[in-house]
Amino acid sequence: MSMIDNIPGKSSRASRINSSQLMQPQHANSFGNVHGGRIMKLVDEAGALAGMRHAQQRVVTVAVDQMTFHQPIRIGDLVTLTAEVSCVGRTSMETEVQVEAENPITGVRTHTNTAYVVYVALDKEGEPVVVPPLIPETESDHERMEAGKNRQAHRLTRIRNKNSNK
Amino acid sequence: MSMIDNIPGKSSRASRINSSQLMQPQHANSFGNVHGGRIMKLVDEAGALAGMRHAQQRVVTVAVDQMTFHQPIRIGDLVTLTAEVSCVGRTSMETEVQVEAENPITGVRTHTNTAYVVYVALDKEGEPVVVPPLIPETESDHERMEAGKNRQAHRLTRIRNKNSNK
Amino acid sequence: MSMIDNIPGKSSRASRINSSQLMQPQHANSFGNVHGGRIMKLVDEAGALAGMRHAQQRVVTVAVDQMTFHQPIRIGDLVTLTAEVSCVGRTSMETEVQVEAENPITGVRTHTNTAYVVYVALDKEGEPVVVPPLIPETESDHERMEAGKNRQAHRLTRIRNKNSNK
Amino acid sequence: MSMIDNIPGKSSRASRINSSQLMQPQHANSFGNVHGGRIMKLVDEAGALAGMRHAQQRVVTVAVDQMTFHQPIRIGDLVTLTAEVSCVGRTSMETEVQVEAENPITGVRTHTNTAYVVYVALDKEGEPVVVPPLIPETESDHERMEAGKNRQAHRLTRIRNKNSNK
Amino acid sequence: MSMIDNIPGKSSRASRINSSQLMQPQHANSFGNVHGGRIMKLVDEAGALAGMRHAQQRVVTVAVDQMTFHQPIRIGDLVTLTAEVSCVGRTSMETEVQVEAENPITGVRTHTNTAYVVYVALDKEGEPVVVPPLIPETESDHERMEAGKNRQAHRLTRIRNKNSNK
Amino acid sequence: MSMIDNIPGKSSRASRINSSQLMQPQHANSFGNVHGGRIMKLVDEAGALAGMRHAQQRVVTVAVDQMTFHQPIRIGDLVTLTAEVSCVGRTSMETEVQVEAENPITGVRTHTNTAYVVYVALDKEGEPVVVPPLIPETESDHERMEAGKNRQAHRLTRIRNKNSNK
Repeated sequence: MSMIDNIPGKSSRASRINSSQLMQPQHANSFGNVHGGRIMKLVDEAGALAGMRHAQQRVVTVAVDQMTFHQPIRIGDLVTLTAEVSCVGRTSMETEVQVEAENPITGVRTHTNTAYVVYVALDKEGEPVVVPPLIPETESDHERMEAGKNRQAHRLTRIRNKNSNK
Repeated sequence: MSMIDNIPGKSSRASRINSSQLMQPQHANSFGNVHGGRIMKLVDEAGALAGMRHAQQRVVTVAVDQMTFHQPIRIGDLVTLTAEVSCVGRTSMETEVQVEAENPITGVRTHTNTAYVVYVALDKEGEPVVVPPLIPETESDHERMEAGKNRQAHRLTRIRNKNSNK
Repeated sequence: MSMIDNIPGKSSRASRINSSQLMQPQHANSFGNVHGGRIMKLVDEAGALAGMRHAQQRVVTVAVDQMTFHQPIRIGDLVTLTAEVSCVGRTSMETEVQVEAENPITGVRTHTNTAYVVYVALDKEGEPVVVPPLIPETESDHERMEAGKNRQAHRLTRIRNKNSNK
Repeated sequence: MSMIDNIPGKSSRASRINSSQLMQPQHANSFGNVHGGRIMKLVDEAGALAGMRHAQQRVVTVAVDQMTFHQPIRIGDLVTLTAEVSCVGRTSMETEVQVEAENPITGVRTHTNTAYVVYVALDKEGEPVVVPPLIPETESDHERMEAGKNRQAHRLTRIRNKNSNK
Repeated sequence: MSMIDNIPGKSSRASRINSSQLMQPQHANSFGNVHGGRIMKLVDEAGALAGMRHAQQRVVTVAVDQMTFHQPIRIGDLVTLTAEVSCVGRTSMETEVQVEAENPITGVRTHTNTAYVVYVALDKEGEPVVVPPLIPETESDHERMEAGKNRQAHRLTRIRNKNSNK
Repeated sequence: MSMIDNIPGKSSRASRINSSQLMQPQHANSFGNVHGGRIMKLVDEAGALAGMRHAQQRVVTVAVDQMTFHQPIRIGDLVTLTAEVSCVGRTSMETEVQVEAENPITGVRTHTNTAYVVYVALDKEGEPVVVPPLIPETESDHERMEAGKNRQAHRLTRIRNKNSNK
């Protein structure tokens, strides 16, 4: 593992990524709804961009939290993903990805998902590398960082349980 | 909701789907690893096929459990997904999707993920429809069905907590 | 043509779209640069989303101004497009699309293009439909609207010359 | 050509590949049928995977036998390809690829094609390399190997005729 | 079957289609060669366009003759397909598709394949429809038509043998 | 910059590229029309092939002239692009790309666009390299070369104006 210490911290805002795209016929299932797997792929891509911006390194996905799909996203909807780093470990980063669907004709926007995806930063040899600390700027940044630590503890517990149940 | 009762039950085996594909350059990130989001998309597609086979109806994704990516899947690997229905509710079905990566040159196969994805069966009007009961054939089918009920209870708890924290 | 008069005006800001994406190997030419045609496609898509948001109607491209590609955009760059409506006619809208390339490792961002793309709003029958007026909010919005009228006059002159040269 | 002799033999079963996928709108022609060329591409990919598994080497296609398309495969069908090595030469392998289409709503499955595709195994320098012998396990494996030798003789005759007719 | 008789004949030349495209990284296998299945797909698409032009109807693939791949087509090559109708039946059309690979740097062009693909013309209900007769313009058109009849007889023999061997 | 002088000239005809393709559902917007951005991408690809053939070098896009889209191109249309080098500088080449849409059922062909795209030829190090002179063969080749010089002067003026207006 690389040892780059005393890296200056960065805010969540500095890593924020917005990505809007129109859901097109080739993204549809037979009902004219967008595949769940398609949304997961967009979420992973947006989270990876935020992580990459924070770490200024390539990143790989290590975990995705449970995702639920309450409302279908439809062909013709404008999907906007907003991703930013929400909590960091030594070499890992949790990102929060908000998914919003907008009917561009009616203008109605619906928040459809909040997802948490964890990445590890890698150097050129593909080895994990230390990432900058996260500096909370607002009260809500601070609360999310605390909640992020709980989510990480929960993830590790579930992995341990899964392994011990094998 | 459609009311089709006394539907004859089916086994997990009857819904089993195998899907092998070679990971190609266009699926890669900059390290020659396959994107996590790409694997999630394949998992969702395989689970949907198993659900569709069980219900003999179109299905939509409603939830994906936490996924972890311990080992990278590499370009040139042969990825095999095996999906089958593991537990059913009235209109919903949980599917278990096993992901295995094989280096076709060395012949070494690695189990990389076990994922649980929940789908709802929909009729032609897009309304939820009752699905056939699941008949466990083996002791392990039976245990997985029981564990599936716990996973479902856990999912609902997490959604409730998430909503009450808003 | 539909006759919906006294439509309330909207600002450029209300139509603003951001879209970030990582340039991936499948977007490359043989030098590891992104195809010019790929950038044009992204520009057209971003402009169309802004136009669609302003008009709350489907839109079709009617003209793209000259584009120049001074610096190559490279595989691995994060491309961010920012599109908003810059000037409107009765049924047509000019959008300004800014293209920025960011090297996510060094964090260096470069403005690579400013493009102007004109769309017409269409109703469900595919007929041109009146669009809301554009309300300038800032001095720079106002100047851009004036410049947009000149660009439109210039476009018409060029088309006329082209036709008379046939 | 590499000279790796006394390679232990393998069965057809050891190379068997299953691949199921749903035919989606983007695979369609204007009648809602899947393009013949799309099926050919899937057949070639499945055969290549079986050949790669047998040889534990990269492979290239050298010949595809005549294919006929008696029944259309439709959008929404689940297509399952089963490929395995059917006959081997010194550096070449013939694979048999079975194509089955299943209507996932009715559960009706139809065998649509049996195709024979020949590959050559290549080492890292791209040179043909000796492949393991094929060990028939069943009477039907044995018959298919004999028939494979006839198919190969027939292929060579046709190529020779084609060349002499030029 | 539709009964449109006395349709005026057309030449092979009238159906001729040229299609050039650069083989790009996403079309490659691990050696930098283009997949055989990819070429088959391009051949089928080009033949279908020629058939569609001749019949002025949608077409479906019914048979592809044996194809051999003597020389690899490489990433960066410019592939040119030339397709035209070579022989017609009542509702079916055989097309000849020539494949040529050009190294755009050296300018060297190589003829890599001649393929024969058979299509049936379909009306709006998806029923086979009578196609215009083919009028040979040159001696070589005439010879190809005669050879086409032999190819068709040969195809039918092979299908019959295949069926009787089942 | 490479210094390869006394390169023998070439005609426009020698660089001519034809490329026909059927517009498929995945190329459509919500009206069943092909996206303007899709056509721009096809135009850029065809022009690049003509430039590559003339220079026998890789090329990068440097400028695209204003494009207008008078008539929509529809799904199911056969689009034919014809590209050739129209004027050359020392290291740059202007290509003329004609776009024609054909309804394959009615046989009606419509000229939809004439576009001018400028490329620079690059050597293996990615440095601009001198291209062969263009030898006009016909009166119309000659006139187009003269008009090309005016288009180039006009492009430079517009770029200068744009920069001075910043």
